[in-house]
Amino acid sequence: MRAAIIHGPGDIRVEDRPDPKILTPTDAVVRVTASCVCGSDLWPYRGAREPGDPHPIGHEFIGIVEAIGDQVRTLSVGDLVIAPWAISCGQCPACRDGVQTSCGHRASWGGSDEHGLPVDGGQSEAVRVPLADGTLVAVPGVSQPDDALAKSLLTLSDVMGTGHHAALSAKAGPGRTVVVVGDGAVGLCAVLAAKRLGAERIIAMSRHADRAALAREFGATDIVAERGKAAADQVKALLGGVLADSVLECVGTAESMDQALRCTRPGGAVGFVGVPVGGAELPVWTLFRKNIAVAGGAAPTREYLPELLEDVLAGTINPGKVFDAVMPLEAAAKAYSAMDERRAIKVLLRP
Amino acid sequence: MRAAIIHGPGDIRVEDRPDPKILTPTDAVVRVTASCVCGSDLWPYRGAREPGDPHPIGHEFIGIVEAIGDQVRTLSVGDLVIAPWAISCGQCPACRDGVQTSCGHRASWGGSDEHGLPVDGGQSEAVRVPLADGTLVAVPGVSQPDDALAKSLLTLSDVMGTGHHAALSAKAGPGRTVVVVGDGAVGLCAVLAAKRLGAERIIAMSRHADRAALAREFGATDIVAERGKAAADQVKALLGGVLADSVLECVGTAESMDQALRCTRPGGAVGFVGVPVGGAELPVWTLFRKNIAVAGGAAPTREYLPELLEDVLAGTINPGKVFDAVMPLEAAAKAYSAMDERRAIKVLLRP
Repeated sequence: MRAAIIHGPGDIRVEDRPDPKILTPTDAVVRVTASCVCGSDLWPYRGAREPGDPHPIGHEFIGIVEAIGDQVRTLSVGDLVIAPWAISCGQCPACRDGVQTSCGHRASWGGSDEHGLPVDGGQSEAVRVPLADGTLVAVPGVSQPDDALAKSLLTLSDVMGTGHHAALSAKAGPGRTVVVVGDGAVGLCAVLAAKRLGAERIIAMSRHADRAALAREFGATDIVAERGKAAADQVKALLGGVLADSVLECVGTAESMDQALRCTRPGGAVGFVGVPVGGAELPVWTLFRKNIAVAGGAAPTREYLPELLEDVLAGTINPGKVFDAVMPLEAAAKAYSAMDERRAIKVLLRP
Repeated sequence: MRAAIIHGPGDIRVEDRPDPKILTPTDAVVRVTASCVCGSDLWPYRGAREPGDPHPIGHEFIGIVEAIGDQVRTLSVGDLVIAPWAISCGQCPACRDGVQTSCGHRASWGGSDEHGLPVDGGQSEAVRVPLADGTLVAVPGVSQPDDALAKSLLTLSDVMGTGHHAALSAKAGPGRTVVVVGDGAVGLCAVLAAKRLGAERIIAMSRHADRAALAREFGATDIVAERGKAAADQVKALLGGVLADSVLECVGTAESMDQALRCTRPGGAVGFVGVPVGGAELPVWTLFRKNIAVAGGAAPTREYLPELLEDVLAGTINPGKVFDAVMPLEAAAKAYSAMDERRAIKVLLRP
């Protein structure tokens, strides 16, 4: 089969790899129908995080179950499934607590499972999925989604669930004012998630007309293009002299966290889901003095998948609109450069 | 009148000061009946925080209203009142949001008010209280509390409300396991607050027999004397192989925050109320990876005062037991050294 391999910063190649097979009784093999590039894939691509030895990449995909191991109970061959960005057993204490990202059975896409067996990346034609029952979610009653539905289902792997995690962590909801820092796919999904949770006033920070337009479509009531103190002043002016109750940090840099904290009122909450880069730390004295709560982290999208899937299937949310480009898997290198250069918000890859 | 003045590290003197008078129409003058030394008073006393020019000290007191300004509406001469550690107007957005510690009308005990007029410290015979309606809480139906009640009322200035803030911030409650880091007066009150909120399993960290005994009396089910990784392992063993849901950080050092984070399960919550010293920062990557929520800060004890006062008056909580020494105001220097050397948990000062 063909799969995207990261060889180093700026170096993505699509290469031949062995066809995945069932290796343990809890495995499934999934034929990928759509995958995509994540903002966090850009960190090793940019060299901001050490990419390590060449390895398969990608952690977001949907596809059709092609084979299952003897112990798989919740899936059947032919099911359309969504793979969350994190592999999880579904049964350990962390999984039972809804924090599948801390599952005790360590395994990762493009890396290896707890037995040391290799696991394919999501940007591939097919993937061996360890701990299939705990990881995959079958889409009931759908096997051939149309393009729009396929895109929205694919966002449940990561970006929509991650935006939801930001919104929940920042306590977004009815009567709470919201600021979203970051206008990438996660930031846009965070706007949609805040709207879905009932927030009425949602300020999106964006300097890109296309992203700002989608933010408005997803529920943003205001767009702020400023940065730093000027942005916080603008938020305060928009909200009648007070800062925001809930701020969703969807980037992961020291600057974006600083921006988030500047926009949060005393006693407010920051939900942060941007993968931290560059050794960002949180200024404990600022949090202490202003009583700002900080929650979030690596989003347990597996936990949120059933509830968000219901809304996607009902058509009440359409997060797939974050995909503004579709390319064949063979063009993965182009997909990375398009996202790196901000020519695309998020690129879907078709094997 | 007589008042404790901090002249520098290790240098507390009780000196003559002008008798307080009403200076603005929203003032009250309170004759102090009991005040005390706070763990946070020890930071400048130890030189861990710059004490600045000589100034009156103390931010916890109860007393009798002796005079009120023309615009004071909720208080009468003769009322027994509790002064929270933070002065607040009660009407600005922060106060309305229940974060009186971020009141827009900056004023501080032992410092000055928003008009630049001096404000007495709590460790004094009497205090001019600015913004009296927003700050002071009258105790209904009591003017001459007995010693035990007076002690419990005095804890509502700071330590009991601060322990409650830690417990709330860490989401302590029914079905949640709790660890309390710190066995000072705040840590002990945090145990009591967690118990009051319905937590059934409360692990207190202590190496002092007297403090551990009081922690047990306040509701701790287990005491852990270890530190660092050994302490986290002990917590895990006590909780059947998982770390705690709620961890209450009641010290304020980098070590205590590290201890708190080590004891928190993935997806758990840290409530922190220890005044941060030594430039502590929060490791954002640890929070991200483990999805640990961090909340807390300078406790808005004014917000919690009515509800906690009700329980103190009903006798259902007795936080005044944290006072294990009573000294005359004239012996303030001895009170500081007793607390500094850990010969006392908390010292009450009688003017």
